[in-house]
Amino acid sequence: MSFMDKDFLLSSEAAKVLYHEHAEKMPIYDFHNHLSPKDIAEHRKFHDLTELWLEGDHYKWRAMRANGVEEKYVTGDAPAYEKFLKWAETVPKLAGSPLFHWTHLELQRYFNITKVLSPSTAKAIWDQTKQLMEGPGYDTVSLLEKMNVKVLCTTDDPADDLFWHKKIREDSTIPFKVLPSFRPDKYLWNNVQADARLCQAVKAGSINAALEKSLEYFCENGCKGSDHGFEAFPYYDEEPGFSDLIHLLGELYAKHGIVMQMHLGPIRNNVPSLMANYGPDAGADSVGVTTDPFALSRFLGELEERDLLPRTILYCLDPADNAKLCTMAGNFAPKVQFGAAWWFNDHIRGIRKQLDELMEQGQLAASVGMLTDSRSFTSFPRHEYFRRILCARLGELVESGEYPNDTQTLGKIVEDICYNNARNFF
Amino acid sequence: MSFMDKDFLLSSEAAKVLYHEHAEKMPIYDFHNHLSPKDIAEHRKFHDLTELWLEGDHYKWRAMRANGVEEKYVTGDAPAYEKFLKWAETVPKLAGSPLFHWTHLELQRYFNITKVLSPSTAKAIWDQTKQLMEGPGYDTVSLLEKMNVKVLCTTDDPADDLFWHKKIREDSTIPFKVLPSFRPDKYLWNNVQADARLCQAVKAGSINAALEKSLEYFCENGCKGSDHGFEAFPYYDEEPGFSDLIHLLGELYAKHGIVMQMHLGPIRNNVPSLMANYGPDAGADSVGVTTDPFALSRFLGELEERDLLPRTILYCLDPADNAKLCTMAGNFAPKVQFGAAWWFNDHIRGIRKQLDELMEQGQLAASVGMLTDSRSFTSFPRHEYFRRILCARLGELVESGEYPNDTQTLGKIVEDICYNNARNFF
Amino acid sequence: MSFMDKDFLLSSEAAKVLYHEHAEKMPIYDFHNHLSPKDIAEHRKFHDLTELWLEGDHYKWRAMRANGVEEKYVTGDAPAYEKFLKWAETVPKLAGSPLFHWTHLELQRYFNITKVLSPSTAKAIWDQTKQLMEGPGYDTVSLLEKMNVKVLCTTDDPADDLFWHKKIREDSTIPFKVLPSFRPDKYLWNNVQADARLCQAVKAGSINAALEKSLEYFCENGCKGSDHGFEAFPYYDEEPGFSDLIHLLGELYAKHGIVMQMHLGPIRNNVPSLMANYGPDAGADSVGVTTDPFALSRFLGELEERDLLPRTILYCLDPADNAKLCTMAGNFAPKVQFGAAWWFNDHIRGIRKQLDELMEQGQLAASVGMLTDSRSFTSFPRHEYFRRILCARLGELVESGEYPNDTQTLGKIVEDICYNNARNFF
Repeated sequence: MSFMDKDFLLSSEAAKVLYHEHAEKMPIYDFHNHLSPKDIAEHRKFHDLTELWLEGDHYKWRAMRANGVEEKYVTGDAPAYEKFLKWAETVPKLAGSPLFHWTHLELQRYFNITKVLSPSTAKAIWDQTKQLMEGPGYDTVSLLEKMNVKVLCTTDDPADDLFWHKKIREDSTIPFKVLPSFRPDKYLWNNVQADARLCQAVKAGSINAALEKSLEYFCENGCKGSDHGFEAFPYYDEEPGFSDLIHLLGELYAKHGIVMQMHLGPIRNNVPSLMANYGPDAGADSVGVTTDPFALSRFLGELEERDLLPRTILYCLDPADNAKLCTMAGNFAPKVQFGAAWWFNDHIRGIRKQLDELMEQGQLAASVGMLTDSRSFTSFPRHEYFRRILCARLGELVESGEYPNDTQTLGKIVEDICYNNARNFF
Repeated sequence: MSFMDKDFLLSSEAAKVLYHEHAEKMPIYDFHNHLSPKDIAEHRKFHDLTELWLEGDHYKWRAMRANGVEEKYVTGDAPAYEKFLKWAETVPKLAGSPLFHWTHLELQRYFNITKVLSPSTAKAIWDQTKQLMEGPGYDTVSLLEKMNVKVLCTTDDPADDLFWHKKIREDSTIPFKVLPSFRPDKYLWNNVQADARLCQAVKAGSINAALEKSLEYFCENGCKGSDHGFEAFPYYDEEPGFSDLIHLLGELYAKHGIVMQMHLGPIRNNVPSLMANYGPDAGADSVGVTTDPFALSRFLGELEERDLLPRTILYCLDPADNAKLCTMAGNFAPKVQFGAAWWFNDHIRGIRKQLDELMEQGQLAASVGMLTDSRSFTSFPRHEYFRRILCARLGELVESGEYPNDTQTLGKIVEDICYNNARNFF
Repeated sequence: MSFMDKDFLLSSEAAKVLYHEHAEKMPIYDFHNHLSPKDIAEHRKFHDLTELWLEGDHYKWRAMRANGVEEKYVTGDAPAYEKFLKWAETVPKLAGSPLFHWTHLELQRYFNITKVLSPSTAKAIWDQTKQLMEGPGYDTVSLLEKMNVKVLCTTDDPADDLFWHKKIREDSTIPFKVLPSFRPDKYLWNNVQADARLCQAVKAGSINAALEKSLEYFCENGCKGSDHGFEAFPYYDEEPGFSDLIHLLGELYAKHGIVMQMHLGPIRNNVPSLMANYGPDAGADSVGVTTDPFALSRFLGELEERDLLPRTILYCLDPADNAKLCTMAGNFAPKVQFGAAWWFNDHIRGIRKQLDELMEQGQLAASVGMLTDSRSFTSFPRHEYFRRILCARLGELVESGEYPNDTQTLGKIVEDICYNNARNFF
């Protein structure tokens, strides 16, 4: 097959039909990402690929470092073009990495460039994209509109006043919804300073009251989901503070019809010098401990028993936990969902594994599909990437005689996974 | 390839030869299942597909729920045909699930129906199967005979008087053996009520004596294997009650030549409302904690040291434990075996993974192969499914030049795995 | 494809180009093995295949036992030819095992024999190889030279006086380097007898001083790497003895520019009767517990914080730990590397998984590639095996349109992984 042409990854006739006649036309409901609402509200413009790609993308930083690029060109103060050149030197070394595909999907979809990025094409690509970015279409809103985005759920601190979300709502030129998500991570661990800050921000007398009040405020402002990151999930008798709080939040989510997202299993900020010099989200995170299925079962079960289990999505960072979390979700499905391949798993094999797990457990057709989980405004071709892999996988079933050649039925399943299920779930 | 025709899954010429000339003709030694001996002894007849398929199959229930079917049509009191219709609506959504393949294998093998089950074919399939079931061949014994079953090992409580097993032995029209298996799960955890019940049933003064006496009685009645399910395996000094009992049982199995089966790693009854309304085996189980290899090593080692290690089969529910359990079995192979892909792993990818693991560790040729672990009388095409995957995998080795095109040698290995090894092991 | 011909495993045109024009010509830097320096220094000759293959290779022993061969023919006193015959009976049963491929690669590369080993060819192969071994080319040095080995790093006890390494250095007929590696496993656990022995051997007053003195001596003798095997890695406050010592060693490695290799996760000597009758390394080891990523993170982080993190390679025995260890290495890459598929993972699927993990995380191009980790002098075709799998995998990317058909760039990456990266890292 040709390199990344229109049938990229579509390895069978059925896959092509499924993608081009079904997946491709569906809009995007991106129910979890880390986009800046301020950047959206301000229609921020980007001026070059370094600004667009390398300003905050720790996926790329990590790949650059792993291939020997000095920190100066990563998070340091090297000139923009030099940084870009280092990225261009790195890209050809990323055979088999999703970064390689994302880079070229982004060049193709946003800039109509089909060249392969390398040191020898870097200058031309830099110039061509820079020129394009001088014209219209390269502000945040246009970039998102171009990808047929209908709804975006950002990730927000409970202390946030949602100023920028309000601005976005008031801006009639923004043709999609931007909703806040409730992310109370730092308030679950009896962190006195953080708790005090939140109590003050929302004018509440206790952390419990503060979280409830903040959540209500988020709901008034269109919030449909919450998000949690857990390095561990110690829902045990010995951890009453945490356990009580997360249980309380579960109940509140159920009462307010809020989706609870649980991102389980990273280990963060592993490199002290990066933490000291740069701070978190520097590209120094990795796969952590396995999730205790007894703790998770108890948590979900105690909510279910009282009919207060919210719609929930479970994501695992360790692909070795796929079976654990998919079957745990399956106990409560379709109310509880096994979420898309996340972060270090957001690549062909990782996505296939997550889809396989869902298929094998009979949970695929009702699944809520893909999300970007990204802070990059050009990360939306990741939906296309996911959709191509989904169509390829289903196409294989037809090719191998494992499913009838019924692209109507499969096409409906594809459309649901691409958009309808997420829209209905949120 | 055509949908599920005679060469289903047989992706190479070598695979076709291996399956059609070797695997297909071998009888079935189903050394672990949950069939009802009463239903066999009584030659119970089935009258429609709901009775046959949906009465107790929590795999199907789970898939229906995950695809939005109300409980009324799952374990509730909806009319039989309506339940079937809900199943027919669910099936097309199960692309990639073994349930999709099992359903169609069962329609093909037991009813000679090659239609694809869906809402549009549901009525015709219901009528046709119902009519067939009015005639001969759809009682439990005929269904099993049709699949060329030679031996069946059911799963029985030590307190069971094996009344139905005796009835079966006395019935000269039953052309296969039905043997009891010893399943003492509930007597290992100092459950006072359960222990008292068993002591009373077998007229013994202690749980140890009761288990020994019961096992002897099982042996007199043809028992060749035991079975254990472990949510955890705490063979530690801190758990002397459990550790002593399981060690004692290991010794007894060795002395009586009984195979010890260890099913490791589920987490059961995760959904309180299902447990309250329905009880266990409602489809609310999932993959639990990883097995502690030190505890397992110590248990097996302490038996081996005294030359009292029984023939043993280790099954893991978490596919992430495959390497752990396969190599642990390999320490003691062929006496200790790594068992077939179990429950949530009983699908193409799961079976391939288990076979790959065995191949890579040099343990495949001596392995005891497949079992149904099912409570359904029409689940025996799962042996065919396994055999096709096995032949496909070995065929791939020939296609890719990894093994000579020697289907005689491979055919002998296939025949052994399909039947001979299990017969010799039990 | 034909059975194991010159294009063995090279499933695409790109793979053939990458292998035959790039990988094949690269020399070997085998940075971790268990070869006997004495056998090298003495130019030990081998006289038959039993001596060459079955004398100490617990991989083969394990496969023989798993296929029912009695211990007499494994580690017992059966005559050499009878042992070989038992191996020849076992080999055809090893479809899909790397032992099958290694056996035939070794027959092809060292003896120019393309026959398939089986009972019917055993006599001819025995005779032919025996006759060849009577001539030149079958001593240790010639065998290694034939494989284009440039550097070998053996594994040595800190108490070793490196007598044989000195002999090798003095021997101008040996055309490659043989360097010692520092393996202090037994001195980290407060083993009084072992510690006393080392202190005496190197004339030091404490185990800390002894390790430092020994390491300096190793460095003077060309040592470039250390090696550690951990059944567990308890780098916790509660384990101060171990934690302090391993931290100290990390610092010393950094100061001396020594690579630290960490082999994580085996469980050893699981079979008491083999341990009693034979001792360790009898083929009774298996995959153990998962590595605690918090402990590992803390260890690496505490060294990094003080700028005393040595170049490090992390190997996991449990393939379920691949994501954990690869991403942990990625935090500190390229200084910390995720090591090649090890021991029970040293097979096609295991190697592919490790390569996939590296690719997906953007760490492949800088990776240090393959090592034998073997005690067999004819195990060096394992490098060829790895290289073929690497080229096949990259070739697939080209075939599927995931990477441009740019075999120049990919060829450079292949050459680096085969040799250059290891040379630069050590």
